[in-house]
Amino acid sequence: MTRPALDGIAAAQVPHSSKDTKVEFNVAEMSLQPSPPRPTDFQRSYSFSGQKDRPKSERRPTMVGDVEEKMIRPGQIRINLKGAYIVDDEGSGTPSASSEEGSAMEVETKDIRLPNHLGGVSHIAVDIGGSLAKLVYFSHEPHEELGGRLSFLKFETDRIDDCIDYMRTLQEQHQAVTGKKDDLCVMATGGGAFKFYDKIRQALDVEVQREDEMECLIIGLDFFITEIPNEVFTHSDDDPMQFVEPKADIYPYLLVNIGSGVSMVKVSGPRQYERVGGTSLGGGTLWGLLSLLTGARNFGEMLALAENGDNTAVDMLVGDIYGMNYGKIGLKSTHIASSFGKVYKMKREAEREAEDNGGLANGDEEHNDLLDGVLHRRESRSFKPEDVSRSLLYAVSNNIGQIAYLHAEKHNLERIYFGGSFIGGYAQTMNTLSYAIDFWSKGTKQAYFLRHEGYLGSVGAFLKRQPKNWGRRNSLEQMRPLYRSHSKD
Amino acid sequence: MTRPALDGIAAAQVPHSSKDTKVEFNVAEMSLQPSPPRPTDFQRSYSFSGQKDRPKSERRPTMVGDVEEKMIRPGQIRINLKGAYIVDDEGSGTPSASSEEGSAMEVETKDIRLPNHLGGVSHIAVDIGGSLAKLVYFSHEPHEELGGRLSFLKFETDRIDDCIDYMRTLQEQHQAVTGKKDDLCVMATGGGAFKFYDKIRQALDVEVQREDEMECLIIGLDFFITEIPNEVFTHSDDDPMQFVEPKADIYPYLLVNIGSGVSMVKVSGPRQYERVGGTSLGGGTLWGLLSLLTGARNFGEMLALAENGDNTAVDMLVGDIYGMNYGKIGLKSTHIASSFGKVYKMKREAEREAEDNGGLANGDEEHNDLLDGVLHRRESRSFKPEDVSRSLLYAVSNNIGQIAYLHAEKHNLERIYFGGSFIGGYAQTMNTLSYAIDFWSKGTKQAYFLRHEGYLGSVGAFLKRQPKNWGRRNSLEQMRPLYRSHSKD
Repeated sequence: MTRPALDGIAAAQVPHSSKDTKVEFNVAEMSLQPSPPRPTDFQRSYSFSGQKDRPKSERRPTMVGDVEEKMIRPGQIRINLKGAYIVDDEGSGTPSASSEEGSAMEVETKDIRLPNHLGGVSHIAVDIGGSLAKLVYFSHEPHEELGGRLSFLKFETDRIDDCIDYMRTLQEQHQAVTGKKDDLCVMATGGGAFKFYDKIRQALDVEVQREDEMECLIIGLDFFITEIPNEVFTHSDDDPMQFVEPKADIYPYLLVNIGSGVSMVKVSGPRQYERVGGTSLGGGTLWGLLSLLTGARNFGEMLALAENGDNTAVDMLVGDIYGMNYGKIGLKSTHIASSFGKVYKMKREAEREAEDNGGLANGDEEHNDLLDGVLHRRESRSFKPEDVSRSLLYAVSNNIGQIAYLHAEKHNLERIYFGGSFIGGYAQTMNTLSYAIDFWSKGTKQAYFLRHEGYLGSVGAFLKRQPKNWGRRNSLEQMRPLYRSHSKD
Repeated sequence: MTRPALDGIAAAQVPHSSKDTKVEFNVAEMSLQPSPPRPTDFQRSYSFSGQKDRPKSERRPTMVGDVEEKMIRPGQIRINLKGAYIVDDEGSGTPSASSEEGSAMEVETKDIRLPNHLGGVSHIAVDIGGSLAKLVYFSHEPHEELGGRLSFLKFETDRIDDCIDYMRTLQEQHQAVTGKKDDLCVMATGGGAFKFYDKIRQALDVEVQREDEMECLIIGLDFFITEIPNEVFTHSDDDPMQFVEPKADIYPYLLVNIGSGVSMVKVSGPRQYERVGGTSLGGGTLWGLLSLLTGARNFGEMLALAENGDNTAVDMLVGDIYGMNYGKIGLKSTHIASSFGKVYKMKREAEREAEDNGGLANGDEEHNDLLDGVLHRRESRSFKPEDVSRSLLYAVSNNIGQIAYLHAEKHNLERIYFGGSFIGGYAQTMNTLSYAIDFWSKGTKQAYFLRHEGYLGSVGAFLKRQPKNWGRRNSLEQMRPLYRSHSKD
């Protein structure tokens, strides 16, 4: 018998020895070491670099000294984040500013402006997941010497060529300004960074720097939490978007990243993280099942259906099982006992009715035709795409909410950040997730959401950029987790 | 906005005050009180009774004295369980011994024989869930003075009338032997005990005694674990049915009961239990979605499909996201990253291809017809019912396994018993659940299964039978949880 495979990334990234599991890298410790003087107008600068190439057989913690050494090398990028804010009502700075119908590209209208950044940022970052590729890049404000903006857009992974074409357009623009082609650096993370590595490198004729997916997610999330006003918010019926001020004291927390699948990452400090779990019931499940069950052709259509649906037409509620008197024994009749629990029953009823009608037919074949016809009519009457969509949206969101709560409980985490493109800013989804956390934790844990929820990984990769040719890992064999260092040399 | 409803029974039975949550009733304490002498050949007898009627406003713990008082009343049933065993290869003792096609009734072929029980057991017990009604009753061996057997059968709840008809047949048989009609006692639990209370009472013209669902589940499970040889087993690839000897030291444990929905109950001692969680993604979800997505018309057909399916045709594996090089960075390519994660992508591809072909069509309408035709053909080619069934079976089972592990972890429980009709003895389901527990707990927790997994509640109700007219709760208003008593009077 074939082994049933579990939520895969969890399976792979939660090894049997907990010693192997922790991937920790404490940037706070860097301040103990000598560092280059910083310009005073740099309120906070992100300076990241990776580890040195090491012999394959050696498996030791990265020394703080190594990191410091890299920090003072020329070519290091410092992005001035002072005064960064989300550009809400202006048009996007993206070259092709409008999403074209059928182009499978979606341009976000919430650029982040960095008004104090001086100098070029010659790289773009892409996070290529199972369903979507998320792109982020920096561009100077036209006609301004100081400042620029981060732009965000996504493509279906299935149309990765469109994404690469877009990157080529950015590259050409970059060339037109600097006159140099190989100056552009492409950062890539997510599974597609490996799957499409050769393709991107060949298409753009530049080096592609691959980064660890989980690490990028938390670097990106830390950036949004600590730096960007009007980015992180809590959601409730009364106040669907209550913003939380950026702050420095953010650890520990749980990140729940919902893409095609779901990853849950415990974050204890800067770059101290551990993937503690996940589930294969994520966005891909919702989109996949709804594309089979409804006529909807994209996520927006599915969510629009869900908005107008009534899940009680397909879900079995406590009231459906217990009858009229549920309230008297303390059970809320409106609670879902079984998602899609009414469907089988209703199909059976339709079948029986069809069989009764079929008794009038003459031959077996005729009977079957009639049966199919009756069934088809009854089903399309009984199960509306709207109801099916809402039920499945609830089921997937509730389930993620409960598992997130249980992992947060196990690791004693009070703050739960939900990221990933599944959420898409939809109130229903956030409402369900928020309610689930509040319900299961009895109000002791808080769900947080982000306006750039889909771009944690790509922003993390963007911020992780370092000069090329630094002897970093160039092949998958040499890729290792970074360990937290306790060494003082 | 409508509040999304969570897994309902959990919502109702996990109140905000933990004080309200525990429904404890310690039968062990009964031994402190005087009790009637027991016949020496009764190795172990089950003697259960409920609480006295109390004024509505009063909400106090049940006194041990109350229980004892009831225990010595005449009419108390003692079932001699000495030497009980499962009748494996004989035909069922059920009057109508074979399941009829289309009757929606399923007779189990694993009766439990009670060779030493003397005297009549004049009651039948039924556990009516959202999808299935599970019936258990005792009948004397024909031509034997001593002994008899427990028989098990189930009906679709949707066809509750068939179930009631069957109960009437049993009633008539009982009457034929005893000459008394009202001697028969009907025990009922599950939501249907309330929903169909009047219906059953009227149809049989007897009192129907309703019992708490969770309490019956654990009484039934305790019975199976402690009394019945060859009942409880562990499952693995190498040894699909390794029986565990009956034993007395069984607490604490987690019961995961998978019916239409899923209940998870922490059991700390005899009748000391707490429903700690559950999920609405259960059997009803699998059956409901598969009845929409495949041509299967019953559970057996769906499971047969799943057995021949290949989930990797619809699930997105880690290998699909990371490309060829997954192994090199420590990710197993075969792990499921997103259940149904390939479906949306493949549908989009089919659409695009259809759009390209559609360019040749003349009018819009014609185009759409063509599009639909192409889509339909492609879909039916791309997504086989077998593959869809296997994927969904994995998804639901894995998910229950992970949530069960997390609750067991939270409450520090090592033994996890899986009950409920969802499992149905199917190796794939048990394999997935077993593997999930082993994987997530890193081998520290053990999954157990039962041959009568679907009958925990009905057996619990059967064993809980007490004489009628004892002033028990007769209406839902008066139904209250039983509290563990610390009183000595």
